Amino acid sequence: MNEEKLYSLSPQHPQRTVIQVGNIRIGSDFLLVAGPCSVESEKQMITIAWQVKEAGANMLRGGAFKPRTSPYAFQGLGLSGLKILDKARKETGLPVVTEVIDPRDALWVSEFADVLQIGARNMQNFSLIKEVGKVGKPVLLKRGMTSTMSEWLNCAEYILAEGNPNVILCERGIRTFETHTRNTLDLSMVPALKEVSHLPVIVDPSHGTGRLNLIEPMGLAAVAAGCDGLMVEVHCNPEEALSDKEQAFTPQQFAAMAAKVFKLRRFMQEMTAAGAC
Amino acid sequence: MNEEKLYSLSPQHPQRTVIQVGNIRIGSDFLLVAGPCSVESEKQMITIAWQVKEAGANMLRGGAFKPRTSPYAFQGLGLSGLKILDKARKETGLPVVTEVIDPRDALWVSEFADVLQIGARNMQNFSLIKEVGKVGKPVLLKRGMTSTMSEWLNCAEYILAEGNPNVILCERGIRTFETHTRNTLDLSMVPALKEVSHLPVIVDPSHGTGRLNLIEPMGLAAVAAGCDGLMVEVHCNPEEALSDKEQAFTPQQFAAMAAKVFKLRRFMQEMTAAGAC
Amino acid sequence: MNEEKLYSLSPQHPQRTVIQVGNIRIGSDFLLVAGPCSVESEKQMITIAWQVKEAGANMLRGGAFKPRTSPYAFQGLGLSGLKILDKARKETGLPVVTEVIDPRDALWVSEFADVLQIGARNMQNFSLIKEVGKVGKPVLLKRGMTSTMSEWLNCAEYILAEGNPNVILCERGIRTFETHTRNTLDLSMVPALKEVSHLPVIVDPSHGTGRLNLIEPMGLAAVAAGCDGLMVEVHCNPEEALSDKEQAFTPQQFAAMAAKVFKLRRFMQEMTAAGAC
Amino acid sequence: MNEEKLYSLSPQHPQRTVIQVGNIRIGSDFLLVAGPCSVESEKQMITIAWQVKEAGANMLRGGAFKPRTSPYAFQGLGLSGLKILDKARKETGLPVVTEVIDPRDALWVSEFADVLQIGARNMQNFSLIKEVGKVGKPVLLKRGMTSTMSEWLNCAEYILAEGNPNVILCERGIRTFETHTRNTLDLSMVPALKEVSHLPVIVDPSHGTGRLNLIEPMGLAAVAAGCDGLMVEVHCNPEEALSDKEQAFTPQQFAAMAAKVFKLRRFMQEMTAAGAC
Repeated sequence: MNEEKLYSLSPQHPQRTVIQVGNIRIGSDFLLVAGPCSVESEKQMITIAWQVKEAGANMLRGGAFKPRTSPYAFQGLGLSGLKILDKARKETGLPVVTEVIDPRDALWVSEFADVLQIGARNMQNFSLIKEVGKVGKPVLLKRGMTSTMSEWLNCAEYILAEGNPNVILCERGIRTFETHTRNTLDLSMVPALKEVSHLPVIVDPSHGTGRLNLIEPMGLAAVAAGCDGLMVEVHCNPEEALSDKEQAFTPQQFAAMAAKVFKLRRFMQEMTAAGAC
Repeated sequence: MNEEKLYSLSPQHPQRTVIQVGNIRIGSDFLLVAGPCSVESEKQMITIAWQVKEAGANMLRGGAFKPRTSPYAFQGLGLSGLKILDKARKETGLPVVTEVIDPRDALWVSEFADVLQIGARNMQNFSLIKEVGKVGKPVLLKRGMTSTMSEWLNCAEYILAEGNPNVILCERGIRTFETHTRNTLDLSMVPALKEVSHLPVIVDPSHGTGRLNLIEPMGLAAVAAGCDGLMVEVHCNPEEALSDKEQAFTPQQFAAMAAKVFKLRRFMQEMTAAGAC
Repeated sequence: MNEEKLYSLSPQHPQRTVIQVGNIRIGSDFLLVAGPCSVESEKQMITIAWQVKEAGANMLRGGAFKPRTSPYAFQGLGLSGLKILDKARKETGLPVVTEVIDPRDALWVSEFADVLQIGARNMQNFSLIKEVGKVGKPVLLKRGMTSTMSEWLNCAEYILAEGNPNVILCERGIRTFETHTRNTLDLSMVPALKEVSHLPVIVDPSHGTGRLNLIEPMGLAAVAAGCDGLMVEVHCNPEEALSDKEQAFTPQQFAAMAAKVFKLRRFMQEMTAAGAC
Repeated sequence: MNEEKLYSLSPQHPQRTVIQVGNIRIGSDFLLVAGPCSVESEKQMITIAWQVKEAGANMLRGGAFKPRTSPYAFQGLGLSGLKILDKARKETGLPVVTEVIDPRDALWVSEFADVLQIGARNMQNFSLIKEVGKVGKPVLLKRGMTSTMSEWLNCAEYILAEGNPNVILCERGIRTFETHTRNTLDLSMVPALKEVSHLPVIVDPSHGTGRLNLIEPMGLAAVAAGCDGLMVEVHCNPEEALSDKEQAFTPQQFAAMAAKVFKLRRFMQEMTAAGAC
């Protein structure tokens, strides 16, 4: 962590990165990304997009390419999924983030997305991250399932070194021996990253816990820890989802959480401001 | 997690455990434990005790027996440390928690302490936890360094099964591959434990992060996640501490954190109450 | 690993520790420990003792005190188990190793045992290991479930520092994310420990794998890696065992393995001797 | 592990996979791969190739594309490295294995290689493994740094499902809390994989331990566990290597190890044959 890197917060680079996407200034405004794990149909996507927008989300997520452990599991709708996302974006005005899993796709997928996501399994897929670095669209870089902060920041460095300064770090839980939760959400990364890097840091409590009852409390905890945003899985009919059904909120659950998130965010900002006096 | 156990929150045991220690009702009032890692001298202990009390702490911690990796490291002051703790307790009125590491000590150490602590390394020291179960004083049971929630709750069950219902669970971080932090503080345990058990849950952000700059944000995050209390290391001169110097707050740092903790706690309770309407 | 410790192989302590137990010279002769996980009955114990002796075992194992995750699981026969072990020892002439889990038991249990075992969960139970250090009987120190080599050797140091030089290290697998095996048997500890320490090193492929079909190949691999002995679970009727039934060999399976183990051990010694010319 | 997969050893697929590469029949003949971590120069490569061939190696390794944690570390010679490998292959007659890290490279790199390697970091790079599946050349699939056997076999399944039956599994150590070794070499995977799959299994004790003194004993242990081959790093001047210098054998050290490996392999086969009578 000692050497000066492009990601480093330092006397040479004291200002925090702010990334403009549509009307949102990520790193300054609170980013609330919501949507289904996978794009499943146009109707599903448009419905959810309106619902999460109404609840306060300012970015839409949805996967068209799904990296799956088994070759026989649902792998995503691909191009037709991207077209659906694009339609939802146009209708609702919400910017869109979607995952890229192949370096050959980075350029053309970026036509359909405002932010390109690199998933946990691909964090150290160096040819892929170099390619999204070249494309220039903002990149949401998820932490690898068992990677250290240093390895994660080095992957951000790969993207920054290609000339793309717009990297958002997303903590999504690491693999531990705990089996009650799907992953162990490492919220200490929020203040730790804010201390060593100028890049914005968001948290995904849905993948990070894998349990419905933990998403809201851990989302609130992430806000108290100082994160710049949250990413939450929302599905119209979670029981019918094609992937990750056990961790998807209904739009109603999401709306209840979003209200608390914004309230707490405001409280934290006021308390910090008061403390600074 | 399926069978009914003594620790289970269930239709048979729907009420949450509240443990009266002095004037505090743990599980209902917010518990703020503070003090040095090790008892080092009477002067140190009394000074800190008054300082943390003034800052809002309602329980004093200090170790007289220190389980150390090397046999040649400082092992604690033993009985003379306990006498110092006792004096600090009498002077300030703060109840005291201290660690027991040998089943032969459980009974007599309990003469000097209001709460007996079982450290992370001894979580599965079954002869020790049975013995503190028999003694009957409230027990603060830290999570083992690599133990699962289920293993942890089973250790609580050992104590409960001896007829001692007063167990406080303390999350203190687990061992992961991350090296930036000393441990990975697993805050998801707070809502997870509150869902399956009626026992109070507190969090130790000092050991749980091992880095000064992370203690306050992670303490606040723990409050937002719904914990029943915090345990924080405080030392008059952290650079001179005989153990854990790199993670001990000064009394001033602690006071600043404590003020925010209580404010946030109140905010969270009001938001929850409002949400319940 | 840099400082000189009592466990260190060094110019100051170049000779390897050899521990005489009955007719065996542990660290020089190959130690083959066998027997059931728990002592269950006199008939069981005596029968197995004769069977493993005939197959080539030169030490008998059997637990009278079992550290168990749940307080409601079978905890061992205690004193009556020790009396059975003692009888098996007298009848067959095999020395006996058994686990101690409470510092208060170390002295009196040592009346019934030739070697005291410290289990994985108690590796860092410092009051227990100091006490077995004082008793003076040889100690078989199992590696903790998630401990590093350095932590393990420091626990050996606790025993050596009490004046007991007779410590045998036993690799028994560490906790990893792999679920196919019960633990991950870390055979690299064998040559690593032989490089830094003069203490004998044995391997437990039964607990270390938790799968019947892996015990023999991993036992042979341990011999090829240079270990000083093996510890193998054997039960007359594995399906009826009160603990660890899924990893216990029948006496016939053990006999087949033992024959190969001794053959391979001889081959390795000859190859090393030839290489030294 | 229950369903029938293409990788499964089963009544439907009882015969073990044998892959012909040049004169070697991998899965039947013992495969001994040797060479430097990175191709550095023609002179280096040709010299080593002759030396490892003489010592008994029957396949040459050398990396032209190196996945590195930092974007500023040496990334390999690329095409010119492949041309050097090709020359070494032609001169010595040794077949060549080299790593592919980008799906766009799979086809053209296969012109220079007899076997394509998928490194640990890319095990779950699904677009890459599908592509090497399509190319049809034999694939050496390293285990991911923290992946389970089941995840690993599912990645083999991705390749097999593309119609390429020639997959060699290579255990190279997993990440654990142990710091003395670079990784923890999980030899239990050898008998475990041979039990559930018909694919050949080899072991890399160089990366798997990261310590010179552990390579030979762990290589021998792997042979005793029943592996189908070994992969060993060899460099003319290890101290000058551009990567992994701390774990590279000199050609002399390799020759000494190779002699023992072949002797032990023969001994194990004879012992097994004798046991079968």
